[in-house]
Parts: sequence; structure tokens; C-alpha cells
Amino acid sequence: MLLSILYIVGITAEAITGALAAGREKMDIFGVIIIASMTAIGGGSVRDVLLGHYPLGWVKNPHYFLIVASAAVLTVIIAPFINHFMRYFRTIFLVLDAVGLIVFSIIGAQIALDMGHSFTIAIIAAIITGGFGGVLRDLLCNRIPLVFQKELYASVALLATSIYIGLQQLDVNQNLVVIVTLVSGFIIRLLAIYFEWGLPVFDYQENTIAGKQNDDKLPTKTK
Amino acid sequence: MLLSILYIVGITAEAITGALAAGREKMDIFGVIIIASMTAIGGGSVRDVLLGHYPLGWVKNPHYFLIVASAAVLTVIIAPFINHFMRYFRTIFLVLDAVGLIVFSIIGAQIALDMGHSFTIAIIAAIITGGFGGVLRDLLCNRIPLVFQKELYASVALLATSIYIGLQQLDVNQNLVVIVTLVSGFIIRLLAIYFEWGLPVFDYQENTIAGKQNDDKLPTKTK
Amino acid sequence: MLLSILYIVGITAEAITGALAAGREKMDIFGVIIIASMTAIGGGSVRDVLLGHYPLGWVKNPHYFLIVASAAVLTVIIAPFINHFMRYFRTIFLVLDAVGLIVFSIIGAQIALDMGHSFTIAIIAAIITGGFGGVLRDLLCNRIPLVFQKELYASVALLATSIYIGLQQLDVNQNLVVIVTLVSGFIIRLLAIYFEWGLPVFDYQENTIAGKQNDDKLPTKTK
Repeated sequence: MLLSILYIVGITAEAITGALAAGREKMDIFGVIIIASMTAIGGGSVRDVLLGHYPLGWVKNPHYFLIVASAAVLTVIIAPFINHFMRYFRTIFLVLDAVGLIVFSIIGAQIALDMGHSFTIAIIAAIITGGFGGVLRDLLCNRIPLVFQKELYASVALLATSIYIGLQQLDVNQNLVVIVTLVSGFIIRLLAIYFEWGLPVFDYQENTIAGKQNDDKLPTKTK
Repeated sequence: MLLSILYIVGITAEAITGALAAGREKMDIFGVIIIASMTAIGGGSVRDVLLGHYPLGWVKNPHYFLIVASAAVLTVIIAPFINHFMRYFRTIFLVLDAVGLIVFSIIGAQIALDMGHSFTIAIIAAIITGGFGGVLRDLLCNRIPLVFQKELYASVALLATSIYIGLQQLDVNQNLVVIVTLVSGFIIRLLAIYFEWGLPVFDYQENTIAGKQNDDKLPTKTK
Repeated sequence: MLLSILYIVGITAEAITGALAAGREKMDIFGVIIIASMTAIGGGSVRDVLLGHYPLGWVKNPHYFLIVASAAVLTVIIAPFINHFMRYFRTIFLVLDAVGLIVFSIIGAQIALDMGHSFTIAIIAAIITGGFGGVLRDLLCNRIPLVFQKELYASVALLATSIYIGLQQLDVNQNLVVIVTLVSGFIIRLLAIYFEWGLPVFDYQENTIAGKQNDDKLPTKTK
């Protein structure tokens, strides 16, 4: 099934981003595997738990976890030997993450629809599946999660899912639906990164939020 | 049912606190909706997952999620235009959070009791439902969670739940039980904020915990 | 049953580490109980939720939670009065955590095996049950989680679980399997701490990851 192949593509891509992020933090091989696993299967796990979709994908098929662990180990072994790679670290990272984002959005939405859920829940399932793994990776590696950065992220998942469900409503061939969604979602995300497209940000009149408002900021952590 | 109305009041109040917190961090509209959603339905979701209470409230009734998203969007649109509001930002924030805390404590306890669980589990369900959404909000916005700050927070949820269950044991009319618990819990929390009531803090003789103890503090994160 | 006794030993040990960590951050008694609870039953809860193993252990038997809360309260009351204790704070902390790590790894693996899961899932269940509580404790107390520090941690859980399952395959008496695994796993972890045994760390050529790579680091949090 096309979605099964895409799932493997998605978890491999996200596992690589997790391994790259963990390797950059100089983690050991176990830390790399843990981060890569949480990135690759974290989003789907949270979706399955919230929707009560048991057993979880990787629990039912543990070989998915082995694919993730292998991709992670290969990444940290190979990466340092590719000099040119380092110059394009961030680009490769964002492109692979975009692959995972769109693939997982499609899968998340389809699983919700298969369970009989509404359009709203399918959208939420898509965004969680597509984005949450990256949030775990970014937080554990001390970075601002991509979903909270300027460039369109969750909006792309929303758009891709809308295209996906819309084309299905039009009775388009399922494989074509998947491919059109994949390509358009992926391109939109890459364009958003390249042109720095972002949503409007609401700004309070900061000067009126006086002193006491910031007393509860988390303290500076020192090593 | 009174509890259904209160649930809508609670998720709206907590969604507003989430939107205010996210807006203060200059997040875009999607980030605001995500933070508001996690604040409003995060606690109930964790409770439902731990108790195996499927399907989750907002999955069964997605319109709750739409109420949350709408409240969040309205908040960030309206807030900057109310000059007087800014001076009372923290007060409004804490009052709305207190509403959510007590309402969700009642609902969390009742759901646990309906499932046949003991008083201990009902208390834990109340504290998780009442407080966890705020913890998610605070951590994602880089603040010390209210539950770990000085003023009574989890204790108020515990007290409110005890009053709630106690009055039920006395066969008081259910609507009266809810109202009395709501009012007393809410007042206690507001008094605790106003008078800075807190629990005892245990203090080690710090000077004896020498150098090596702090080598594992999380490193300073820089932008 | 030996595993039930070990479970109580494990949650007590981890509750003490949680209380020590929370007390060191000068949290109040409620914060101490919350941190201790998340440390002691957090790993098992995540495992049960991922495997769909309902009801959760402490939900079915709330007295486990009461054991944890009592251990936590006793710890913060007694600890400041033991002067000699402070000099060995870190040692006591790591030893107790090691007890919990091995005990929970065994229990986590056995629960997965009882549910009919494969060796891979049993390993993952062991690592999650053994390590995740400590991760929650460390993150909430602003520390680098032990699992991401230099000394062998998750590897020890992996090793212990392999020994456990291996001895079971050899039809060794179950109580002997548990004891041999406990002792060897515990000793390996203590040796790893003492000799600072760690896994290889992969290092990128840092100088080639230029400026823009670090623009997304989480901002400094100030109080």
C-alpha cells in the first residue's frame, strides 16, 4: 500500500532529523537513538493514544522501530564524513523534516477518518502526527520547536490535510490524492522556508505589562 | 446539565489564559491556538488517557475544540485594543485560571467517581484535570508553572475536591454541591493569591551540597 | 510475589530521589509530592499507556500512590536533620535511582512479555519504565536527565533486560532470574557511575556548522 511505503519514508526522514539534532548536541549513540525514535514515532504515538487507536503502530510492528534505530545509527556514523554536508546541514534538516511533516499529516488524517472521526478531528490528528515528533526532538535538544518559529508549519499541515480530504470528497483516485497532496504540501512548506512566509503575529503594547509580569520567567539554567 | 455548562466556562477561561500567555510571547495565530488548546483541554486529556476514559471529551464532541479556538482568536484580536486591560493583565490571567482550576477539579473528580474509582483517585484526577493544562501552557511559554509557585494551587484543588465529595456524601442536592464547591474553591484560590498564602518549604543546609551537585544543571540556552 | 515486593522497593527508591530533587529546588510539600509521584510512577504509566495496559497499576491499587507520597514526605522531613547525609547527597541519589532503574526495567519487560509482545517491545518497555520517571524528575527540576549524561544508563537497562530474558529462555527458576538480573544490573550501573563508563560520542566538525544554525536555540530564561 502506498501509505505503508510513505510511512517508512516518513519515519526514516524524521529519524534522520532526530539523529542530526542529537548528534549536534554531542549525545552518545543511545541518546541519538532515543531522540530519533521520539521524533519518528512520537507524533503517531500521541495521536494513537488520544484517539484510543490500539495497539500503536510500532508496538504492533516492532520492525518499524528497528528501521528508525538503523537510520539513526547510520546517520551519525556517515554524517561526519561528508564535508560538503555540513554546509547544508540546516537545509537537509528542514527538507527531511518537511517530508515527515506532510507524510505524517496524510497518515494521521487517514487514520482518524478510518476511525469514523469528523473533519475537525482529522485535521487535529494530522497536525499532531505531523508536528509533535519534531516538537519532542526540538525541546529535548534545547531548540525552539519549528512549529513555533516564523515560517508556516502547522498551517501547511492544515492546508495539506484540507487538500487531501477535499480531493477524496471529489472521488479522485486514492493514489493520485496522496501524490498530489504530498507534492503540493511539500512544495508549500519549502517555499515558506525559502521566502520566510509566516502568519501575522499579535503584539501587545509591551510597555504596559510592567515589572511584576515577568517575575515568573523560568530561571537561567547554568552548567 | 450544570457540569456541561461549567465545562464550557472552564475551557473558555483556560483558553483565554493560554491565548494571553502565547500572545505575550509574540506567537503567531497558530501558536496561540495550539497553546490555548493545550491549556484548555490538556488536563482533561491526560486524565482521560490515564484512566482509560475513551473516547476523550473533545474527540467525541469536536465543537468543544472549536469553542477553544474561537475564544483564543477573539482574545488576541481584542486584547491589544483594551488599554486598561494591560494594567490588570496578571490579575485577569490569574482569575481566569482560577475559574478553570476549580471547574476542572470538580469535573475531573466527578468523572473518576463515575468510573467507580476511589477517593484517592478522584483527588488525583481533580488535580491533574485542574492543573495540568496550565503546566503545559506555562512550560511552553517559558514560565514557572503556577502549580510550583508560592501561592496555594494544587492544595486548593485538593480542598475543593474534598468539599465536593464531602457534600455529596451528606446527600446535598447535586447542583448545590457544585455551586458551593465552585464558590468556596474560587474564593480560597483568590485569597491565596492576594495574601500570598503558601505551604511550608523544606530547606536543606545548602552550603553542604558542594560543587559537583550542580554540574548537571541544564545549560544556559542562548538565542 | 517477588515482583510486587520489588515494585514497592522501586517506587519507594524513586520517590525518595524525586523528593530529594524537589527539596533541593526548594519546592513546597505539594511540589515535592508531585515530583516524587511523577518520578516513581511516571515511567510505568507511560509504558501502560503506550501498550494499552489498562487499568494503570496505581489506578487499580491507589495505595501504591500513598506509599509514594509518604516516602516523599518522610524524605523531606528527615533529610535536613542528617548532616552527614548532605556530603553524600549525590551518591545516595544515584544509588536509589539505580535501584529503581533495574527494578523497573525488570517489571517493564515482564509486563510486555505477559502481554505477548516481542523481545524488541520488551526492551523498549524496560527502558521506558526504568528511565522515564527520572527524565520527568530531572526536567522539572531543571537538570540534564541522567539518561542523557555520560555514564551508561539506558544501556544498563538494555543489558539487564537481555540478561533477564536470556535466563528465562534457559528455564532458570524465576526468582533466581530476578535476583541475578537485579544484582548484575545494579552492579554494572554503579560501576559505570564510579568509573564514568560511557558510550562513544559522535562529533561533527563543529566549525563548519556556521552562524545561522544556532539562531533557533531556546532563549535565555531570566527570573
